[in-house]
Amino acid sequence: MALHPDRLFPVEPGPRGIARRLYAEIARLPIVSPHGHTDPRWYAEDEAFPDPATLFVKPDHYIFRMLYSQGVTLEELGIQRRDGAPVEADPRRIWRLFAKHWFLFRGTPTRLWLEHSLADLFGIAERLGPENADAVFDRISEQLARPEFRPRALYERFGIEAIATTDSALDDLRWHDRIRASGWKGRVLPTYRPDAVVDPDFAGFPENVSAFVRGAGLDAVTWPNYLEAHRVKRAFFRRRGATASDHGHPSARTADLDQAAAARLFDTVRDGGGSAEERELFRAQMLTEMARMSREDGLVMQIHPGAVRNHNPALFAAFGRDMGADIPSATDYVRALKPMLDLVGNDPRLTIVLFTLDETAYSRELAPLAGHYPALRLGPPWWFFDSPDGMMRFRELATETAGFYNTVGFNDDTRAYLSIPARHDVARRIDCAYLARLVAEHRLDEDEALELAQDLAYGLPKRAYRL
Amino acid sequence: MALHPDRLFPVEPGPRGIARRLYAEIARLPIVSPHGHTDPRWYAEDEAFPDPATLFVKPDHYIFRMLYSQGVTLEELGIQRRDGAPVEADPRRIWRLFAKHWFLFRGTPTRLWLEHSLADLFGIAERLGPENADAVFDRISEQLARPEFRPRALYERFGIEAIATTDSALDDLRWHDRIRASGWKGRVLPTYRPDAVVDPDFAGFPENVSAFVRGAGLDAVTWPNYLEAHRVKRAFFRRRGATASDHGHPSARTADLDQAAAARLFDTVRDGGGSAEERELFRAQMLTEMARMSREDGLVMQIHPGAVRNHNPALFAAFGRDMGADIPSATDYVRALKPMLDLVGNDPRLTIVLFTLDETAYSRELAPLAGHYPALRLGPPWWFFDSPDGMMRFRELATETAGFYNTVGFNDDTRAYLSIPARHDVARRIDCAYLARLVAEHRLDEDEALELAQDLAYGLPKRAYRL
Amino acid sequence: MALHPDRLFPVEPGPRGIARRLYAEIARLPIVSPHGHTDPRWYAEDEAFPDPATLFVKPDHYIFRMLYSQGVTLEELGIQRRDGAPVEADPRRIWRLFAKHWFLFRGTPTRLWLEHSLADLFGIAERLGPENADAVFDRISEQLARPEFRPRALYERFGIEAIATTDSALDDLRWHDRIRASGWKGRVLPTYRPDAVVDPDFAGFPENVSAFVRGAGLDAVTWPNYLEAHRVKRAFFRRRGATASDHGHPSARTADLDQAAAARLFDTVRDGGGSAEERELFRAQMLTEMARMSREDGLVMQIHPGAVRNHNPALFAAFGRDMGADIPSATDYVRALKPMLDLVGNDPRLTIVLFTLDETAYSRELAPLAGHYPALRLGPPWWFFDSPDGMMRFRELATETAGFYNTVGFNDDTRAYLSIPARHDVARRIDCAYLARLVAEHRLDEDEALELAQDLAYGLPKRAYRL
Repeated sequence: MALHPDRLFPVEPGPRGIARRLYAEIARLPIVSPHGHTDPRWYAEDEAFPDPATLFVKPDHYIFRMLYSQGVTLEELGIQRRDGAPVEADPRRIWRLFAKHWFLFRGTPTRLWLEHSLADLFGIAERLGPENADAVFDRISEQLARPEFRPRALYERFGIEAIATTDSALDDLRWHDRIRASGWKGRVLPTYRPDAVVDPDFAGFPENVSAFVRGAGLDAVTWPNYLEAHRVKRAFFRRRGATASDHGHPSARTADLDQAAAARLFDTVRDGGGSAEERELFRAQMLTEMARMSREDGLVMQIHPGAVRNHNPALFAAFGRDMGADIPSATDYVRALKPMLDLVGNDPRLTIVLFTLDETAYSRELAPLAGHYPALRLGPPWWFFDSPDGMMRFRELATETAGFYNTVGFNDDTRAYLSIPARHDVARRIDCAYLARLVAEHRLDEDEALELAQDLAYGLPKRAYRL
Repeated sequence: MALHPDRLFPVEPGPRGIARRLYAEIARLPIVSPHGHTDPRWYAEDEAFPDPATLFVKPDHYIFRMLYSQGVTLEELGIQRRDGAPVEADPRRIWRLFAKHWFLFRGTPTRLWLEHSLADLFGIAERLGPENADAVFDRISEQLARPEFRPRALYERFGIEAIATTDSALDDLRWHDRIRASGWKGRVLPTYRPDAVVDPDFAGFPENVSAFVRGAGLDAVTWPNYLEAHRVKRAFFRRRGATASDHGHPSARTADLDQAAAARLFDTVRDGGGSAEERELFRAQMLTEMARMSREDGLVMQIHPGAVRNHNPALFAAFGRDMGADIPSATDYVRALKPMLDLVGNDPRLTIVLFTLDETAYSRELAPLAGHYPALRLGPPWWFFDSPDGMMRFRELATETAGFYNTVGFNDDTRAYLSIPARHDVARRIDCAYLARLVAEHRLDEDEALELAQDLAYGLPKRAYRL
Repeated sequence: MALHPDRLFPVEPGPRGIARRLYAEIARLPIVSPHGHTDPRWYAEDEAFPDPATLFVKPDHYIFRMLYSQGVTLEELGIQRRDGAPVEADPRRIWRLFAKHWFLFRGTPTRLWLEHSLADLFGIAERLGPENADAVFDRISEQLARPEFRPRALYERFGIEAIATTDSALDDLRWHDRIRASGWKGRVLPTYRPDAVVDPDFAGFPENVSAFVRGAGLDAVTWPNYLEAHRVKRAFFRRRGATASDHGHPSARTADLDQAAAARLFDTVRDGGGSAEERELFRAQMLTEMARMSREDGLVMQIHPGAVRNHNPALFAAFGRDMGADIPSATDYVRALKPMLDLVGNDPRLTIVLFTLDETAYSRELAPLAGHYPALRLGPPWWFFDSPDGMMRFRELATETAGFYNTVGFNDDTRAYLSIPARHDVARRIDCAYLARLVAEHRLDEDEALELAQDLAYGLPKRAYRL
């Protein structure tokens, strides 16, 4: 299946023509990637990527969750077990297994991303399958060894203008320092992700908090010192270019306790204590504290709520987290965000970007909230919804209430570096398809649609994330 | 952007042709507006509307919520503050600010409504923007001064056959009396809206209830007298042409307490007492009481549940209610309505029209309920969903289970008088677009679609609201 | 309205052509009907169906719920009352009443099913209405008397390869035995449906449980004997060809109590005792017990949760269950299924097919769950959503996350035997329409779409249900 130039455009000739014209103007705009999970070490060391299986299969939870759902074991895919028991070590065998099951991805975004990468980067236009698995493996392997497939060369080739990584609040950002020290002109920014020190259910939370406070040069693990450690570390991140923080919580709940109550709550949970409700309340309080700090230091605040993490305990025991077993659940925003919004929602200097795994919230809660509060913006469709139909539903459900300018353009949100151009391309095509329909239905003029297409692809992410 | 004759029709030539033919037959049908918020005083006094800002910007929460979300203050828009602090008083400056931000409304129904009004009423076909703001302001102002832009002249010009206002149960309907006394043949009907006396959280509830009971010529503020006051006031409304009541509650909850328990609950809440649960229970009980009375006096009962009102306390403190800070929330109907339906749901003489701000209820709860209970009908998409895509979703999600004849046609629900033709036009176009798809997919014959288009635009609202 | 060969296909010529080509290849594939409610007695006795009203109107809750919602009484439709009071007995009068209200079904799947049956089976291509009600009645009646309209002849004519009925765990399967004893080569399979003995709220539960345990040749009504009775009866069903069980619960809740606690719970509820919570917990525990047994005996487990049954108490009192008064409600799967999935979710030998009446779960919960757990598959759109738009939404919302191969093809789920070809035809057409869009948008190659169309229509139901 060759990459068709009209892919994802509307089928009707009228809107398809409009979409083509819009897309032609934005296809080559630089990529601004304000939220994602690539590894800063790649840009620092600039070494060749290993084999195709390690590059495409083993780190991609979209891929191995689908294979697992159809009876392929993670061991066969070479995923490391916690107990060190042997797993498949031959990348070629893993690749063959993947190729044999490639048909499972029909109709999924993974299909689009991989085929785009194979075609555009590696010149492989045939459909992957058992019969060409070896040849494709060889062809990719050969090219990965070349200098033009090193991380920095790809950064240039992809037309990236800026890319943010996501970094633990405990991270020393050494790779970011190395990138800056190297004199390379690529713009790789850290993002402040404090889960390890704000979520009492995070593995090692008590030790994390102690290390965090001490790392800020403070002694006693007290609530004021803990907050001060956040301020110190946020400043540390900002000096390395960070413009945003990121918060992945089970719910969107926020709280605004008085500081004495917050200090007591901190004392309850800091050593691993506290009920489930108290731990949830602590996370809720910390969202509000982070918003307060954002108002001061200008970090854009991203909230990614609503995943039930590690839903599969057997899999978690054997392989750990991020193994494709995180499942969305119904997520309330209207009541959950109120304590935080009561405090900071009217402040236009602050930007809070909301994400969801519950699409019912788009039209019912998120668009009405973002269409009112100056501090709120809507993030793009996330995770399971980072897909053509998912993106189209987002625009259809959010635009009539929130407009376009309360959204922030696209986030690729990926650790799959090679898929980044494909992902931005899908988003640009779908936005053009949506705009083309509005034009074809005489709801928008084409010159406005073009301005919007440019803003959605480039202007909005730059401005919203202060890049 | 001139008004295109094919706007909102399907893009494909086949269904577009069908939609055109259907629309041509219904475009000029009279407007029946059974639910809305225009001011009866307009029709009574028939005075010229003031300037464009006062007409289009200041009273329209769709408009100022969007501007506010992007950092424009309500003071700049001339919205009166409760503390009397000065706000922008120059309509031209307000209009300029609005025009400068007009691009924010791309993709929203506000865009469609305003452009329809400007083009059709004022002959202004250019797109609004900073460069023509003054010229447009002048052109509108000039025309507003003319007799043909007075409320009654517009009523005729719009082809309105009947229009309902929404009136507090405490209202003396003096403007309605003035309209009738004037001999003008326009049909303006009141609607019984008892929030001020059935919602214990309504500002001034205790005083409202006392005044209400006394106003009915009764002395003691007792449960029986309170119910009797409703009967008296409903009859008062009916004598002035009312055919419906309207109920805006935080939830759809109903209750059917025995009368002794209801009397005790009334005594608990009537002076401002009662827990949150008791106040909610009182509202729930009152929906059932209203249904019981509707069964007797024939008023069609409208239920508009699910808005979290005044979500933004700072804004509420400064400007009061209806400032664009009402946010929908998840709304249950299946369990909430059961007590009331157990009592009256099987009665085909009663009509209860259900609305929602939670689109997930369309296919899951509302269509199955309305497709079974003789007393239930589905209101049109409401508020945030009074929009092209919102209307299309409603038909797509409700029709396969509830059909068309358990729906009631369109409500414009607006206080923006000049937008009424635009709003009905959008609804008619979208219904024709939906019907055209069914015909093009051979799910419906075109003669049936035409009958349906006529019923949806005219027959159903007349029959459902007994107009 | 004649049956148009392009009905339900996309309107655009490009995808319409693709859909036609796909459909041409699958239209005549055999019907595999792994879940439904036809009466095994029909196939055993092979007698003529009675008149049109008894065949089409009286047993079809889709039909009489719509008529009832518009003020037609169930008595007028000849539905038997529990108190034996007289109801309409003349099938011709019932049919006339139905024909008079046939316009109510515009836009509904009932319209498609009935017109398909009338045209294809009875050669009646005119639209039903008051003017031709008698003629149509006569024409159908006359044909029903012919041998080619007997159940077995229709089975052949419909091209059925296998059809499952749904049978109480208390059933002796005599009709299934009669079918097998008759030597007829049609394949009619029972399905194990244990509601009467696993749901403490089922009418007669205590007696049912006693009879069930005794029926297995066991004495004491104890938890171990009760479980053993399930094993015995499941084996009895399997020997008669059953490949699946079916479970219709108010929620999807599961539990995994230790056996001592489960035994105590059984003792609490078995004689009609227990709180609402305990009765719900018992149902939850039984889903897990059934999953455990399925893992051993290989029965595919179907879960149909989320209907609030008998929502209308007056109707229930007069007419009993299944009278069109079951209403869907919001249904959680992520937390509800966890206890069962913790136990069996990773077992690829087990197949659990999930259904829903809450469409919001498709993209938020069901596709993510089925796209991960090897034991899970998604059933087709159910009940209110067994409709063209309902099916299209299912594909649009589930495919991008779960793909096609975690779904199981179509279930007709009907007791309306004559509608079976129409229902499968609708599903095949909609799947072709969806696939055609993917091809037209260059997301899938046409040869893949054809393979998928064949799998969705035939291969997947056979494999998923082990037929």
